[in-house]
Amino acid sequence: MATIADIGVSALINILSMLAFLIAFALLRIQPINDRVYFTKWYIAGKRSSPRNRGGGVVGKIVNLNCKTYLSFLNWIPQALQMSESEIIAHAGFDSAVFLRIYLLGLKIFGPIAVVALLVLIPVNASGGTLFFLSRDLVVSNIDKLSISNVRPKSYKFFVHISMEYLFTFWACYMLYKEYDRVASMRLKFLASKDRCPEQFTVLVRNVPHISGHTVSDSVESFFQKNHPGQYLCHQGVYSAKKFAKLVKKRSKLQNWLDYNQLKFERQPDKRPTRKTGFLGLWGKRVDSIDFYNQEIKDLDEKMIIERQKIMKDPKSVMPAAFVSFKSRWGAAVCAQTQQSKNPTLWLTRWAPEPRDVYWKNLAIPFVSLTIRKLMISVLLFALVFFYIIPIAFVQSLANLEGLERVAPFLRPIIEWKLAKSFLQGFVPGLALKIFLFVLPSILMIMSKIEGHVCLSVLERRTAAKYYYFMLVNVFLGSIVAGTAFQQLHAFLHQSATQIPRNIGVSIPMKATFFITYIMIDGWAGIAGEILRLKPLVIFQLKKMFIVKTERDLEKAMDPKSIDFPETLPSLQLYFLLGTVYMAVTPILLPFILIFFAFAFFVYRHQVINVYNQKYESAGAFWPHVHGRIIGSLIISQLLLMGLLSTKKAANSTPFLVVLPILTLTFHQYCKSRFEPAFRKYPLEEATTKDTQDEASSASDIELKSYLSDAYLHPIFHAVEEVELTEVKVDKPRPR
Amino acid sequence: MATIADIGVSALINILSMLAFLIAFALLRIQPINDRVYFTKWYIAGKRSSPRNRGGGVVGKIVNLNCKTYLSFLNWIPQALQMSESEIIAHAGFDSAVFLRIYLLGLKIFGPIAVVALLVLIPVNASGGTLFFLSRDLVVSNIDKLSISNVRPKSYKFFVHISMEYLFTFWACYMLYKEYDRVASMRLKFLASKDRCPEQFTVLVRNVPHISGHTVSDSVESFFQKNHPGQYLCHQGVYSAKKFAKLVKKRSKLQNWLDYNQLKFERQPDKRPTRKTGFLGLWGKRVDSIDFYNQEIKDLDEKMIIERQKIMKDPKSVMPAAFVSFKSRWGAAVCAQTQQSKNPTLWLTRWAPEPRDVYWKNLAIPFVSLTIRKLMISVLLFALVFFYIIPIAFVQSLANLEGLERVAPFLRPIIEWKLAKSFLQGFVPGLALKIFLFVLPSILMIMSKIEGHVCLSVLERRTAAKYYYFMLVNVFLGSIVAGTAFQQLHAFLHQSATQIPRNIGVSIPMKATFFITYIMIDGWAGIAGEILRLKPLVIFQLKKMFIVKTERDLEKAMDPKSIDFPETLPSLQLYFLLGTVYMAVTPILLPFILIFFAFAFFVYRHQVINVYNQKYESAGAFWPHVHGRIIGSLIISQLLLMGLLSTKKAANSTPFLVVLPILTLTFHQYCKSRFEPAFRKYPLEEATTKDTQDEASSASDIELKSYLSDAYLHPIFHAVEEVELTEVKVDKPRPR
Repeated sequence: MATIADIGVSALINILSMLAFLIAFALLRIQPINDRVYFTKWYIAGKRSSPRNRGGGVVGKIVNLNCKTYLSFLNWIPQALQMSESEIIAHAGFDSAVFLRIYLLGLKIFGPIAVVALLVLIPVNASGGTLFFLSRDLVVSNIDKLSISNVRPKSYKFFVHISMEYLFTFWACYMLYKEYDRVASMRLKFLASKDRCPEQFTVLVRNVPHISGHTVSDSVESFFQKNHPGQYLCHQGVYSAKKFAKLVKKRSKLQNWLDYNQLKFERQPDKRPTRKTGFLGLWGKRVDSIDFYNQEIKDLDEKMIIERQKIMKDPKSVMPAAFVSFKSRWGAAVCAQTQQSKNPTLWLTRWAPEPRDVYWKNLAIPFVSLTIRKLMISVLLFALVFFYIIPIAFVQSLANLEGLERVAPFLRPIIEWKLAKSFLQGFVPGLALKIFLFVLPSILMIMSKIEGHVCLSVLERRTAAKYYYFMLVNVFLGSIVAGTAFQQLHAFLHQSATQIPRNIGVSIPMKATFFITYIMIDGWAGIAGEILRLKPLVIFQLKKMFIVKTERDLEKAMDPKSIDFPETLPSLQLYFLLGTVYMAVTPILLPFILIFFAFAFFVYRHQVINVYNQKYESAGAFWPHVHGRIIGSLIISQLLLMGLLSTKKAANSTPFLVVLPILTLTFHQYCKSRFEPAFRKYPLEEATTKDTQDEASSASDIELKSYLSDAYLHPIFHAVEEVELTEVKVDKPRPR
Repeated sequence: MATIADIGVSALINILSMLAFLIAFALLRIQPINDRVYFTKWYIAGKRSSPRNRGGGVVGKIVNLNCKTYLSFLNWIPQALQMSESEIIAHAGFDSAVFLRIYLLGLKIFGPIAVVALLVLIPVNASGGTLFFLSRDLVVSNIDKLSISNVRPKSYKFFVHISMEYLFTFWACYMLYKEYDRVASMRLKFLASKDRCPEQFTVLVRNVPHISGHTVSDSVESFFQKNHPGQYLCHQGVYSAKKFAKLVKKRSKLQNWLDYNQLKFERQPDKRPTRKTGFLGLWGKRVDSIDFYNQEIKDLDEKMIIERQKIMKDPKSVMPAAFVSFKSRWGAAVCAQTQQSKNPTLWLTRWAPEPRDVYWKNLAIPFVSLTIRKLMISVLLFALVFFYIIPIAFVQSLANLEGLERVAPFLRPIIEWKLAKSFLQGFVPGLALKIFLFVLPSILMIMSKIEGHVCLSVLERRTAAKYYYFMLVNVFLGSIVAGTAFQQLHAFLHQSATQIPRNIGVSIPMKATFFITYIMIDGWAGIAGEILRLKPLVIFQLKKMFIVKTERDLEKAMDPKSIDFPETLPSLQLYFLLGTVYMAVTPILLPFILIFFAFAFFVYRHQVINVYNQKYESAGAFWPHVHGRIIGSLIISQLLLMGLLSTKKAANSTPFLVVLPILTLTFHQYCKSRFEPAFRKYPLEEATTKDTQDEASSASDIELKSYLSDAYLHPIFHAVEEVELTEVKVDKPRPR
């Protein structure tokens, strides 16, 4: 167990590295050459132009020469706070604004709890405990003195801890309720204030049955004409167009080369660029580049038109799914929420996601296949969470020297070389684990994709959930109980239901110092690393040096991506878990978490405003998950406290805790039924109100139809110029 | 452990008592005096008249003198089988027909399983087992020789049991799937073939918000006018009318007396009946009875009209709930399946149950209260299932002699009397438990009512679920593991997750003889008791002797009630559980269950046709529960077999079983999403089809409105004559 001095040293190191990151950030961000990395969002919004066009000399375009700007290296914090929440919603989207609220929620929950816990529990724990008297000199500086470990077994003081757990749970639930209420009403307001957009009128229909003699388009048309008379407007089919997608990709590459050559020609008008016609331009006849690419593109366009017509006509490339649009939001709301067909596996309807949010590949998965996929992935996830260490250990055993020598005897001379030997032995065994942890989010995302969800937002939420389970077992439990997850699973199966929380609970106070260090490294320094954006910076500069040829390439290179929900949400939820578990046990941990929440709030507010560009808008659809996981943390905390107290022989006080998980679960049930429909359904009242508003501003059916007709066209068809697309707009309803 | 001879004796006794019951039934049912008890359904359907009017002399009216009818005492069985299923649906309702299918399903599942199990497992178990060789003479007639206990530990024969468990599970799932499919399509066909009825057009709206300055009726009207334009037709408010209900009750009593006196006068036209005006007609002025009751009824009618008007006007007696009717089934289907308001706790809509099925008292429970009630009842149910023995033990301890003497010293002389003493000591301690078990279904029904469900059918289903949990813990587990449920709970909490199925599994083969006896007593003899209807018979004859005055009283006295779903469904499911648990362990139990299913099928088919009169029609809404419980039984059976095998040290074969519960659960998930919507939702396709049919047969809106206007009037308002009710039909939509 670490002494307070140890923690002090660790804190110092972490604060120093944090400061180093921040100073580096402050220096790098004001260099014009990095402008596109640190202010990406503004470039995308079109509100900031390249500093190269702003004058200041050749050097001034690359390095900042204004000394004054170097002095205020923390001035990004007030800048980040200037924007109001509604401005953030307008600027960076609702998801980002709600994401920031999670950090605020952390402050709101743990702020008052920390104050009360420090004022009440620390004196209770510190005064007259076992450790205090028995070993005053030995461990007087141990932070265990401030934790529940310091209280004598069978003490009546445990009533204080129990009542504090009650108090803290009630406070947390109160804040959760208020926040859920606020987010739900914000979401409804946001949806209500949204301008007319295709997803309000559109429903995604899957599992369209195959009726012989009819095309999918015909069946969709006649089914909805019949069952939603007076409401059905039009629909858009879904195509499987792998070959076409390849052509589109090829065309964009050719276009890029053409742009590059034209740019080159503009800069040196005296010399037309040329290239050879052979493989990679290495041999063959030398031709004029611009003419060559123009001709190639023309040829490709012809091919694409033929291919596109083939897709439209070929019944095999039409998927049994469609986006059906209605004349009013009311009609769409009704269709999305009702069952259409006698057979509930056919004609499945749900709200259409935003066009940007659609994951096209999963639209046509049959119903039975979905069930099997879900089963397969849950089994796989379970195996991944508990047994991931087995293949890694296997790889590690292969990677050790004897194994390597056996597998590849020709490597013997290198292995025998001493430097390589120590490098291999010291570095390689850890490498397999590092690589695994690095690719884990991608693996989880692939698993979610196999599960068959149809929107990117759901895919990300499911990935976040999987990642959270992994962290819960391997980071939280793995740190508290020694041994691999596999060993823990074995132990859990062979322990009684009351023994498990005891075994975990009893080690909790002992691991407080470990988690404090974890928070400082992962939370404090990690967040400072987040604002520095070292990886995107390096990648951007490398790309700029070697790949970027045209303006389009530059834009591609600076793509900031969205906030990485699948990774940030679970780690955020882990902090909530740590906070709730330790709030009644070792309250000294809370200030460290508070610092994390506050600092991360500033950093992400800055990043949301200046960097990230959300690729879709789910209107805060992840909130129910955030809420649910915090409730889960509360229950874990209560169970572990019960386990801990029962090892302290506090038999007279522990039973009082039994009621708390039941109350918490009931609260969760209530919140679920009270607020979750706001995130899943679209009330008819709202739809009618918006429809009435629309009628006032007079938008006719025909206008609406043309507005909706190709909103849900597959993006690869959009990629081609607009002129050619007129031919693609099929599936318009016939005149009645 | 009982020998086969023991079981033979027990079987003989039970078969004899079964035969005695059947002969008693055969004798009693052909006596004209009992006709109304054994053919109630036909009286209610109006297809059978009192045998008294059929001639045959005075004695012939009471006792059957036709000797021929005595000879064929089993001829009710072919009679019961004559009706086809569709005739049963028309005669006794869909619920009854589906209820009978559960018994058939039992035969379909366990019939082939029994054949295979007896042919394959019995030889495997019997040959060369431990018991066979080691103790040939001692237990050679023990039925354990035929069970899995006879197989040597670590034997490879366990692979046979495991593959049989797989085979049986697949067969059971296949039958379950086919049956679910059949019942679901039968249900849809039944609903589609139903004539126009109010619940097709009506939606129950609860939690209507209070808007100041508006009555509930006004808010409902304007809300649905706005959000379901063109579809809304009319609505019917819900009133709280306790005082009115009392008046209605009083009036029906007076009417009965009037009828009685008029009947008396008709029989003796020379003497007008008289009565005294005082209390119970014991003193006071003697008046003409017919005039007296006529006057009383007239007075009461006036009071009732005033009271009714008061109810209609008083905003306090109008509940925040309403039955809203739509112009088409499509409109109602849309409203029932969508969310209406931004606040998901307001304007809650669901399909209106049949008017007969409504449980009026629960229509106005606020949303928050529902959550709290559910929590309270689940805690209570948990306590009831596991701790019910505690208060009973307390009562028993009070009821013993010393306790009684202390509480009531004046009883000492009686207690000291020897006969009374032995009676008290022998009988009273068991009495408390008996009384508890007798009133248990009523207690569970009251608990379900407190939970706040709005239809009788749901109330009965919830009660059945509660009763099943009670039986699962106290009958099934309680018989296998020794000790009270409370002790079991304690043991479970202190055992590991893998130890629990081991501890239960290991005792399963040992309890086979007990359960065989249980099946014979509760199943065979119990069902024979069911057909005898001894209790209703006695009660009917007693009522007829002492209470019945008029024809109306007679009808009341013969009321056969519905099939007692809350008791029959759980016990039926218990038989499925026994069958699945023992099918791979002690297959000799299966024939006993098969006999139960077959016999019970005949008996209930007879009862459904001749006796029971369903008070509502839920169109088989209980099927998903039946399906779910059988799946649950399969999983319990797999887990227990795993536990059992692991005690047999079959470490090489047991892991093969782990996959089975996962597959079974996935199958359940699939069935749930495939079929359950047919029981919960009403597809728009169906609604449209029926609407189109209706249009063809031309039913105008006005006609429909008058048809629906008082379909959902509170039944007590219906009780009063139709003439007066014209004034009560308020809440008609105003002319537009």
